Amino acid sequence: MKIGFIGLGIMGSPMAGQLIKGGHDVYLYSRSKVPEELVSNGGIPCQNGPEVAANSEVIILMLPDTPDVEKVLFGDEGISETLLEGQTIIDMSSISPIATREFASQLATKNVSYVDAPVSGGEIGAKNATLTIMVGANGSMFAKVEPIFKLMGKNITHVGDIGAGQVCKVANQVIVALNIEAVGEALLLASKAGVDPSKVRQALMGGFASSKILEIHGERMIERTFKPGFRIELHQKDLNLALNTARSLGVSLPNTSTAQELFNACSAAGQSTQDHSAMVCALERLAQHTVA
Amino acid sequence: MKIGFIGLGIMGSPMAGQLIKGGHDVYLYSRSKVPEELVSNGGIPCQNGPEVAANSEVIILMLPDTPDVEKVLFGDEGISETLLEGQTIIDMSSISPIATREFASQLATKNVSYVDAPVSGGEIGAKNATLTIMVGANGSMFAKVEPIFKLMGKNITHVGDIGAGQVCKVANQVIVALNIEAVGEALLLASKAGVDPSKVRQALMGGFASSKILEIHGERMIERTFKPGFRIELHQKDLNLALNTARSLGVSLPNTSTAQELFNACSAAGQSTQDHSAMVCALERLAQHTVA
Repeated sequence: MKIGFIGLGIMGSPMAGQLIKGGHDVYLYSRSKVPEELVSNGGIPCQNGPEVAANSEVIILMLPDTPDVEKVLFGDEGISETLLEGQTIIDMSSISPIATREFASQLATKNVSYVDAPVSGGEIGAKNATLTIMVGANGSMFAKVEPIFKLMGKNITHVGDIGAGQVCKVANQVIVALNIEAVGEALLLASKAGVDPSKVRQALMGGFASSKILEIHGERMIERTFKPGFRIELHQKDLNLALNTARSLGVSLPNTSTAQELFNACSAAGQSTQDHSAMVCALERLAQHTVA
Repeated sequence: MKIGFIGLGIMGSPMAGQLIKGGHDVYLYSRSKVPEELVSNGGIPCQNGPEVAANSEVIILMLPDTPDVEKVLFGDEGISETLLEGQTIIDMSSISPIATREFASQLATKNVSYVDAPVSGGEIGAKNATLTIMVGANGSMFAKVEPIFKLMGKNITHVGDIGAGQVCKVANQVIVALNIEAVGEALLLASKAGVDPSKVRQALMGGFASSKILEIHGERMIERTFKPGFRIELHQKDLNLALNTARSLGVSLPNTSTAQELFNACSAAGQSTQDHSAMVCALERLAQHTVA
């Protein structure tokens, strides 16, 4: 299949590589130069988004944030004017669920299909084709695009109609942030009470307090290994999506709001590029005590 | 061994039963009548706490809260005046870590040993002898009392010195409450965004958002099965311990504080005896929307 891929950063580049390896004709464009390795493996570099769109049946976007997706679709050098009936946009960026539905509506007027399919699993998941992919797609579209996803990921869920993938990703980021704060508050309290936080973590694993975050991020807090992983600045972006979506819909997310404030405090202290488990440092500064 | 057991409620009664089954001479006292079944199985009923203390090498307490433990130890009919050098108190109640250390210090003046060993696992864990037991004990005391715990539980951890068991239990309850709020905020946002929360839960299990709470309490929120389980009023008691301990030590627990407020709101709405997963109902009322 002729597949376009716009956005070849840390995530997009290895994802496009999987599609090339899978035997597809992949038309590539990125703001920065198309990586040499993708071209030498058979990828076809293009000069701009419209050139990608003119050559591809399906166009995948993997961009940093909502305004970037809007610009690639509807900006000055946007692809929407090139797109024709029967083409499909798959947005694998993590962006606003509400904007996603607006973009899809605009493209639907031209009978262009839209699928949102944000991922989790990070750079390692992209390189090993083990990404978790959360898909929002109407009716029969999921079956049509699923084979493409299978080249890039392992745990692929059709969550619901257009926008449902982005909603699911936002829900994921809310839970991850709040579970980090849960572990941070608990381990800091234990440590300031004079109890070894690694013993507490061990005692709690397997019980009702157990979580992937207690296991992995709890260990990071104790070992002080805050090299990312997943950067605080990216999680701030995702909680911003959560809080804006919540405000639009009329939902109150009190703990998500506090978690964002702690990330903001970490950024103020110069920690925006550290792993999100470093959220605990904001709590530590308040308590004038470190977990370990 | 001659073991005393004071506090024969929903938890204490089956726990004492395991010790009788294990072949110990168990001296029993409870504010309410000693259960007939324990006596017919060989337990020895006593008229008051001091009678238990006078007959036992080790005295286990399983009481509702800090003031109850204080009363049994140091109140008008308290056992402290009966206790002699070489006897050991094992408090398996979930109470204040700070009060625990004070009680232990007072008893140390009489060379009476003290071990704190709160549990998790609930009534089912007590009946099946599968409780998780978090032990605070100095030096060689853990080895001395471990065989007793093995009759009542499976996952037994020596967390640290006196008080460490209670600190660990408080940390457990903080994480559980905050993970419940995490899942509640995420599923409510998804639902109000028009996405099936059960699909979201499925998509997130196995990834970084996965937790025992997403699995069990997430399902309860979706299925609306708020019969306990673990009652909100008990979790309020535990978060009160967490917040008081934090205040005493100089630790700020912003999300624990909010979670407690949501439990308070549930109580105001008549939900204090529902399962703690019903915390989501307080968020739902704010959003005028239910998860399912």
